[in-house]
Amino acid sequence: MNASSRKVLAASCKQACRSLKIGSRGIYCGVARQANVTLDNINENVIKLEYAVRGPLVIRAGEIERELKVNNGSSRPFASVTRANIGDCHAMGQKPLTFLRQVLACATDNDLLNGPYPGDVKARAKELLEYCGGQSVGSYSDSAGVEIIRKHSADYITARDGVDSDWQNIVLTTGASEGIRAVLSLVNTTSTDDKPSGVMIPIPQYPLYSATISEYGMHPINYYLDESNQWSLNTDELKRSIDKARDKCVPKVLVIINPGNPTGSVLTRQNIEDIIKFAKNENLLIIADEVYQHNIWDGEFFSFKKVMHDLKIEIELASVMSASKGYMGECGLRGGYCELVNFDPAVKQMFLKMLSARLCSSVLGQIALDCIVKPPQKGEESYDLYEKEKSEVLSALKYRAQLVADTFNSIPGISSNKVAGAMYAFPKIDIPRKAVKKAAEMKQAPDFYYAMQLLESTGICIVPGSGFGQLPGTYHFRTTILPQNDKLEQMMKVFKDFHTRFVQQHS
Amino acid sequence: MNASSRKVLAASCKQACRSLKIGSRGIYCGVARQANVTLDNINENVIKLEYAVRGPLVIRAGEIERELKVNNGSSRPFASVTRANIGDCHAMGQKPLTFLRQVLACATDNDLLNGPYPGDVKARAKELLEYCGGQSVGSYSDSAGVEIIRKHSADYITARDGVDSDWQNIVLTTGASEGIRAVLSLVNTTSTDDKPSGVMIPIPQYPLYSATISEYGMHPINYYLDESNQWSLNTDELKRSIDKARDKCVPKVLVIINPGNPTGSVLTRQNIEDIIKFAKNENLLIIADEVYQHNIWDGEFFSFKKVMHDLKIEIELASVMSASKGYMGECGLRGGYCELVNFDPAVKQMFLKMLSARLCSSVLGQIALDCIVKPPQKGEESYDLYEKEKSEVLSALKYRAQLVADTFNSIPGISSNKVAGAMYAFPKIDIPRKAVKKAAEMKQAPDFYYAMQLLESTGICIVPGSGFGQLPGTYHFRTTILPQNDKLEQMMKVFKDFHTRFVQQHS
Repeated sequence: MNASSRKVLAASCKQACRSLKIGSRGIYCGVARQANVTLDNINENVIKLEYAVRGPLVIRAGEIERELKVNNGSSRPFASVTRANIGDCHAMGQKPLTFLRQVLACATDNDLLNGPYPGDVKARAKELLEYCGGQSVGSYSDSAGVEIIRKHSADYITARDGVDSDWQNIVLTTGASEGIRAVLSLVNTTSTDDKPSGVMIPIPQYPLYSATISEYGMHPINYYLDESNQWSLNTDELKRSIDKARDKCVPKVLVIINPGNPTGSVLTRQNIEDIIKFAKNENLLIIADEVYQHNIWDGEFFSFKKVMHDLKIEIELASVMSASKGYMGECGLRGGYCELVNFDPAVKQMFLKMLSARLCSSVLGQIALDCIVKPPQKGEESYDLYEKEKSEVLSALKYRAQLVADTFNSIPGISSNKVAGAMYAFPKIDIPRKAVKKAAEMKQAPDFYYAMQLLESTGICIVPGSGFGQLPGTYHFRTTILPQNDKLEQMMKVFKDFHTRFVQQHS
Repeated sequence: MNASSRKVLAASCKQACRSLKIGSRGIYCGVARQANVTLDNINENVIKLEYAVRGPLVIRAGEIERELKVNNGSSRPFASVTRANIGDCHAMGQKPLTFLRQVLACATDNDLLNGPYPGDVKARAKELLEYCGGQSVGSYSDSAGVEIIRKHSADYITARDGVDSDWQNIVLTTGASEGIRAVLSLVNTTSTDDKPSGVMIPIPQYPLYSATISEYGMHPINYYLDESNQWSLNTDELKRSIDKARDKCVPKVLVIINPGNPTGSVLTRQNIEDIIKFAKNENLLIIADEVYQHNIWDGEFFSFKKVMHDLKIEIELASVMSASKGYMGECGLRGGYCELVNFDPAVKQMFLKMLSARLCSSVLGQIALDCIVKPPQKGEESYDLYEKEKSEVLSALKYRAQLVADTFNSIPGISSNKVAGAMYAFPKIDIPRKAVKKAAEMKQAPDFYYAMQLLESTGICIVPGSGFGQLPGTYHFRTTILPQNDKLEQMMKVFKDFHTRFVQQHS
């Protein structure tokens, strides 16, 4: 970034701060002096970084929530904000799994090991504590995680794929995001001719990727998913995008999100085979973001590892999984794993060494993951309840996946692909020309303007498509399918009314 | 790093892998192909990074533990490994605080809110859940943490310093390490003449700093602590080191660890005043690593924030605190905070934006921190027990601080400064010339050789001084004071015997 573009960026950030009523000096800490650390001398990658899922719309949603609280809900035509912007299951009313929470409680307060909890709960907690230093979840684990939980994770993967998984290739991470960030950091170099490392990401993408790529000074290679074909991924587009990027970077990583976020698509087996062959030809490391592997509403989930094994292709693959999604939705516990497949052992050692500087991930998060990769087995005391809770969550999500897509498709000017997987719809919207003009006057992207109007008048918080990337001239938004059934039905009605009104107002 | 030095480094890493019996190909994942990702093309900063606290000695300790398990302890002249290498309190037998664990259990399994726990436990869990999405610890918190816990942290700081703390300047982090790493990343830039950002770190230092500085491609500016004067810090040495480093980097950050890790020293108020004035003159941001603020055995703790306030000096300060140390020792829960003082609000916004890409820290870790910054108050049901547990831990640690220093000083050839704070001693050892030669033959640092011999023959695992930095030609090691009293007394006896034997064998 040269000096003048840095100044432009810094100025626009100051502008953003002003619009958030932060002021450029003094409101929070009363500084009237010349600061040492300013927008002009901090990490420019941090300035560039954007993370739409938690951007200005979310901040505004929080303000409205506080306003509603103060005025007891009377100041607006709605009583509460609907946070459809983020895949935060419990915040939207999903109940936690009883078994998982009981094991956590038992492992935390060991007096409960002598209490009335089911036998398999107590046995699990005891087993896990055997592998914790001093039998306490307050001890550090190995940087890669508690050994028995790594082994249970390997067993889970082996059973899922019918392909052996080695527990020593698995590291337990703070959600899936830490694993993704660590793998990107591992391969991040600048070539001798000063080209950054290139990372292929889908458009639309989950903004964790673009944010991390910015933060690390890497180069994003955007490949477009095909909206007209259920957001599928075709390898001609991979080829087009990598060829175009070669003079700007050294392509190193191919990121695949399957099931798709924000698209809700599920890759076919044929698709995955083509992608693996492409990555092999181009000598790319694949990051397979497979955190939604339990959220399949239509089609079938195939892991990259299994397909790669069946193809007898051996290239580096990092597959990530999380306790935050699926049917458990334990986002706040920050459990996850990353499996490194086909890595040179010496490189793997470097990866483990790098992770050691952050000590370890939350041991309770690791225990939550354990309950997911090794749920109660048939015949065990907690089995029936676990299965019941799991299938209730999954069948409700399946119903909502259909409801959301169908409702959007019933609204003139909105069209949605099938929500075949994950927890999101990413519909396309026609925004009237007058609204596009109004947005330009307010220096907002048209879909940001749309989303802000929706939030202000209905309390529904979504994320504009510009936060994920979209074809120029098209507009989208991402909504989760997480509000409970009655709330979601109500939300879809309100959304329909809003859109009709919005189009009328801007025609 | 040029191509040839990169090759040397890669070769030595391969050597290290071989000595760990990993092999350079195939043992873990059976790769016989040419790998895409190799030591020759990964992030060179990751290759350079070292993190001694979890290095080869710790790996060897784990192997010996497994060996003892298999042979039922009979294969060695000791029955178990004593992990004195890491400040991992519970692993060394310290018991968790009852109040803290009960609040965590209650917040996790909400059925316990109707059970027999003390009223203040249930009230606290209820209060915190009110601030969690869907009243679940499974929801994401704001990236900066749960609002009420940020407020309680601010109240704690205000009470500690008698200086106002604004909760909006506090972010809740995954232990203290995440906050430190984020602040370093925030200010990490390369100047127009290609100089990296310089970070002043004490020698000896906690290797998280050197590891992170390597990983981020920053430049370490080593300033030496004065061993002959209780590891105190003098500003002439700060001046010497920064002046020497100016042609290699742009100095930006001054890191202070107080109480000291690994030195066990506690800075005087006068010392802190001088340091702040130095930082002001040099336009440096101060990172005050104050995670041991409750671990004071001699002297008094003054926070950098308070002293800075009293001096009426306003420069940027980031102070970090952790749930892992003090009297609670909850390392595995990964709770911590970072307070930003005197930051330009626009820069603070950038910091928060950067943190948003990792979503949030563990909500249960945040709750653990809450119990520490807001312990039960006089008159509340859990107060007496909390105070009792707290003072028992602290008085045992105080006893051990004295015991360790006294015993080392009673051994000819070992001398230790007072352990005035934190959880470590960092004694100097005379290593006989013959041992230095033997170490050289084995391509080991002399103090690494000493530590490995200690481990193999006694099961005591310490960290050699070379992992923290020391004056050339001097040798040290770090040991924690964490083994329980009887175990520590036994360990000190065994240590004394070992040292005598080691000197005899190498004379």
